[in-house]
Amino acid sequence: MTKIDNHNNNEDLQTQLQRVIYLLRKYKLVEGFVNLQETPNQEIAESSIQKQNLAELKHLLDTLHPADIAYILEALPIEERLIIWNLVKTEYDGDVLLETSDAVRESLITDMNSEELVAAAEQLDADEIADLAPDLPRAVIDDVFRSLPIAEREQLRAAMSYMEDAVGALMDFDVITIRENVKLEVVLRYLRRLDELPDHTDQLFVVDRNEHLKGVLLVSRLLVSDPDLEVTQVMTKEMVKLHPDDNAEQAAHAFERYDLVSASVVDSDGKLLGRVTVNTVIDFIREKAENEALNLAGLSEEEDLFAPVLKSVKNRWVWLAVNLVTAFIASRVIGIFEDSIEKLVALAALMPIIAGIGGNSGNQTITMIVRALALGQVSTNSAWKLIAKEMGVSAVNGLIWGIVVGIFTYAIYQNASLGLVMTMAMILNLLLAALLGVLIPLTLRKFGRDPALGSSVMITAVTDSGGFFIFLGLATIILL
Amino acid sequence: MTKIDNHNNNEDLQTQLQRVIYLLRKYKLVEGFVNLQETPNQEIAESSIQKQNLAELKHLLDTLHPADIAYILEALPIEERLIIWNLVKTEYDGDVLLETSDAVRESLITDMNSEELVAAAEQLDADEIADLAPDLPRAVIDDVFRSLPIAEREQLRAAMSYMEDAVGALMDFDVITIRENVKLEVVLRYLRRLDELPDHTDQLFVVDRNEHLKGVLLVSRLLVSDPDLEVTQVMTKEMVKLHPDDNAEQAAHAFERYDLVSASVVDSDGKLLGRVTVNTVIDFIREKAENEALNLAGLSEEEDLFAPVLKSVKNRWVWLAVNLVTAFIASRVIGIFEDSIEKLVALAALMPIIAGIGGNSGNQTITMIVRALALGQVSTNSAWKLIAKEMGVSAVNGLIWGIVVGIFTYAIYQNASLGLVMTMAMILNLLLAALLGVLIPLTLRKFGRDPALGSSVMITAVTDSGGFFIFLGLATIILL
Repeated sequence: MTKIDNHNNNEDLQTQLQRVIYLLRKYKLVEGFVNLQETPNQEIAESSIQKQNLAELKHLLDTLHPADIAYILEALPIEERLIIWNLVKTEYDGDVLLETSDAVRESLITDMNSEELVAAAEQLDADEIADLAPDLPRAVIDDVFRSLPIAEREQLRAAMSYMEDAVGALMDFDVITIRENVKLEVVLRYLRRLDELPDHTDQLFVVDRNEHLKGVLLVSRLLVSDPDLEVTQVMTKEMVKLHPDDNAEQAAHAFERYDLVSASVVDSDGKLLGRVTVNTVIDFIREKAENEALNLAGLSEEEDLFAPVLKSVKNRWVWLAVNLVTAFIASRVIGIFEDSIEKLVALAALMPIIAGIGGNSGNQTITMIVRALALGQVSTNSAWKLIAKEMGVSAVNGLIWGIVVGIFTYAIYQNASLGLVMTMAMILNLLLAALLGVLIPLTLRKFGRDPALGSSVMITAVTDSGGFFIFLGLATIILL
Repeated sequence: MTKIDNHNNNEDLQTQLQRVIYLLRKYKLVEGFVNLQETPNQEIAESSIQKQNLAELKHLLDTLHPADIAYILEALPIEERLIIWNLVKTEYDGDVLLETSDAVRESLITDMNSEELVAAAEQLDADEIADLAPDLPRAVIDDVFRSLPIAEREQLRAAMSYMEDAVGALMDFDVITIRENVKLEVVLRYLRRLDELPDHTDQLFVVDRNEHLKGVLLVSRLLVSDPDLEVTQVMTKEMVKLHPDDNAEQAAHAFERYDLVSASVVDSDGKLLGRVTVNTVIDFIREKAENEALNLAGLSEEEDLFAPVLKSVKNRWVWLAVNLVTAFIASRVIGIFEDSIEKLVALAALMPIIAGIGGNSGNQTITMIVRALALGQVSTNSAWKLIAKEMGVSAVNGLIWGIVVGIFTYAIYQNASLGLVMTMAMILNLLLAALLGVLIPLTLRKFGRDPALGSSVMITAVTDSGGFFIFLGLATIILL
C-alpha cells in the first residue's frame, strides 16, 4: 500500500518537496513565456514543453504516499498548491484531505465541486467521512450518505454524533470478531479466507451472539499457541474497554501507559461498537499539543501558513483584544501614580523591570501547575504544598534578582532608597506571581474551565498591574 | 501482562490515586499516634493496625500496572512518595523507573542503594537499561554490564552510544528474523515454538545469512496467505528503513505519516540492527511536546512537582536572568527619554500598551513560523511570501488596534496629537514585530540553532525596547 523508498525517507520528502517546487516553477515560467509570445507556432512548441513538465509533475505525485502529498500541499502558497492539487490522482483525493490540517483542507475543498467532493468521500470509510464532515457542504454529505450501504450509514450517523474530544470521534469500525468456543485452527482458517486484515489488527475481538465483548485474542498469542486449543483458553479478559463518550485525552493516556496498538470501544451494555487504533491516537496527541502551543501564543486555531491576510487577522484578533484590555488596565494603574512619576521620572524607566520579571516568574509557575492539572496530579491536599513551594521559590528568586536590580538601580541613579524600593517591589511581585500562579489555574479548574486557556494571559495581567501598583505605591510611600 | 479493569480505566486511576492517599494518611496518622503514646501495650496494638494499613497499601500496589504506579508516585510529595516506593514489588522497580519522568526518577534513585539499583536494572532489556543509564551511578552500570550475557553487553554498549535525539536511542533489539526461501508454513511452525512474541510484532524481518534486510513479512499478510507460499512471494520490499543516526523527530513524523507500528533500523550496509516501535515513538512525541512547552515558559527541564525549592530555583534562573537583561535594556531605552516623560507624564502610562501588544503580535508570528520550520515547510522562496503576509496582517491589526488605543488615549487625556502618536506607534511596532517575527527564527535556523529556543524571548526584547523607542521617539518629535 505504502510506497516508501529504501533510503532515509525524511530526506527524501524534503527532496521531493524541492523537486515539486522546481517543476512547478519551470511550468509557470513557461506558461508566462507563452502568454508573452503569441505566434501560433511557438505556442504549440511551448505548450508541448508545458505538457511535458506537467506530466513529469503528475508522475512524481503518483509515486507519493497521500500523507506526503498532504505535506507538500501544506508547504506551498495557495496558487501553487491548487495547481498541484488538480494533478493529484482522483482516487487519492479522500486520503489526502484526511491528512491535511483543517486550514489547508478548507482551501482545497473550496477548490472542488460537489461531484469531486462526493467522489473523494466515497473512497473513505464511515469513520473517515465523519472526520471530513465538518468541512463538507451539507448537500455533499447528504449525497454521500445516500450512496452508502445501510450498515455504513448507521456507522456514519454514529461517528458524526460524537463530540470532537470524545473516544467516539477516534473510533473506527474495522473489527474482526470471533466466537469463544472455536479452536484456534478454525480462527486461522477463517482469517485465511479474508483478502486482508484491517490495519493495526493486533487483536481479534471475542464476542457472544449478542455482540457483547467477552475478551480479546491477541494475534501474538494466536501465533504462538497450539492450534488445537480453544479461543477461550487463549484469550484474555484483561483489556482496555473504552466507551464512546470517554474523554479522548484520557484514552490517549491509556494508550501511552499500557503501550496499546488498538483498544475496544463498547457501549454501556458491553456491546462491541468498534475500536481505536494507535495511529489515530498519535494524530490526536500531536494535534492536541499543537493546539495548546497555538492557543498559548494567542492563535485561535491552526492557521494555513499562506492564509489570506484577513483570515489571519480573524484568527488572531481575540487574543490581541484581551491583552489590550489588560494593557489598558495596567496603563490606568500607572495613571494613578502620575504625580509620583512627575516628581521622580526614574520610576517610569524602572517600572517595566518589576512587571516583566513578575510575568516571567508567574508563567513558570502556571506552566508547572497546568501540566500537573492536565495529568490529574494535583489534589486539594497537595495544593497547599504547591503554594508553599512556589512561594519559597519566589522568595529566593525575589531576593536574588531583587538585589541585582537594586544594585543596577543604585549604579544608574545613585539613589540607595530607590534601589531598596526596587528590591522590595521585586520580592513582593514575585510572591504575588507565585500565589496567583497556583490559584488561577486551580480556580479555573474548579469552575470547570480549561486551565490551559487564559491562565497565562491572566497571570501576566496580574503581574503587570500588580507590579506597577506595588512598585509605584512603595516608591510613593517611601521616597516622596 | 497488563492488569486492567473492565471499567473506565482512567477514572479507576484517579480512584486508585485517591485510595493510595487515603491509606497513606491513615498509616501516617496512626504512626504519629504511636509516637505520642508510649505505653508498650498500646504500641503493639497500634503497630498491628499499622501493619494492616501497610499490607492493604501493598496489596493495592501489587495489582497496579507499573505505569500506574509511576503515575501515583509523580503525584505524591516526596516523603509520601518514598513510603510508597518502598512498598512496590522489587520486580516492578525497573519498569516503574522507566515510566517516571526524569525529575521524579532522580528522587527515587537517590533513595535506593547499589544492590537495589543493580537488581532493578537487571530486570530490563539492554535498550531499557540504556534509557536509565544517565541517571545511574557509574558503579551500578558497571555491575549491570558485567552481569549481562555477551550479546546483550554489545547491545547495551551500542544503545548507550547514540545521541538522545537519534533513532538509535529509540531502538530496541526484539526483532524476529526469518529467511526468504522458506514456506509460510515453516514460519508459522517456527513462531509456535516461541513462548511469546515481542510486543508490537506486526512484521517479521526477512534477512539473508549476513543479516542484511531483504524485506518484511507483515503478520497481517502471513495470516491471510496460503501457507504453501514462500516468504519471498508474500513479503514486501516497500518499507521504512531507519538509520540509528537519523533524527528521532523525523522518524516520529514517518510513524505518523505512514501509520507504522514498527520500523526496521539498519546500518549503512543495510544490516538489520533493531527496530523502533510505536509506543516508544508516542513517548518521544509526548516528551518532546512537553519539553517545548516547558522551554517556552522558561523551565530548563521537566521539574518534579514537589522538587525542593533550591532545585526549582536552579531550573528557572536562566530564563529569568535573560529576561532581566532585556528588561534592563528596555529600561535604558526609556531612560533616554526621561526629559520627554518629565514634560508629558502621560507617556509613562501609555508606553507599556505599545510594547505589550507588539510582544503579543510578534509571538503569534513566531509561533506560526517556528511550527512551519519544524515541519520543514519554509523555503527561501516562501520566506518572502511569509514576510509579506505577516506585514500585511500587522498593517491591518496595527490600524485597527492603533485606532482603538488612539481613541482610548484621546478619551483619557483629551489630547488628539497624543492619540495620533499612539496610533502611529502601534502600527510601526506591529510591523517591526512581524518583520522580526519571521526573521528571528529564520536567522536562528540559518546559524544551526533551534528556532524554538530563544525566539520568543528575543521578539519580546525587540518589541519592548523597540516599542518604547518608537513611541517615546515619535512623541518627542511630534509633541514636544
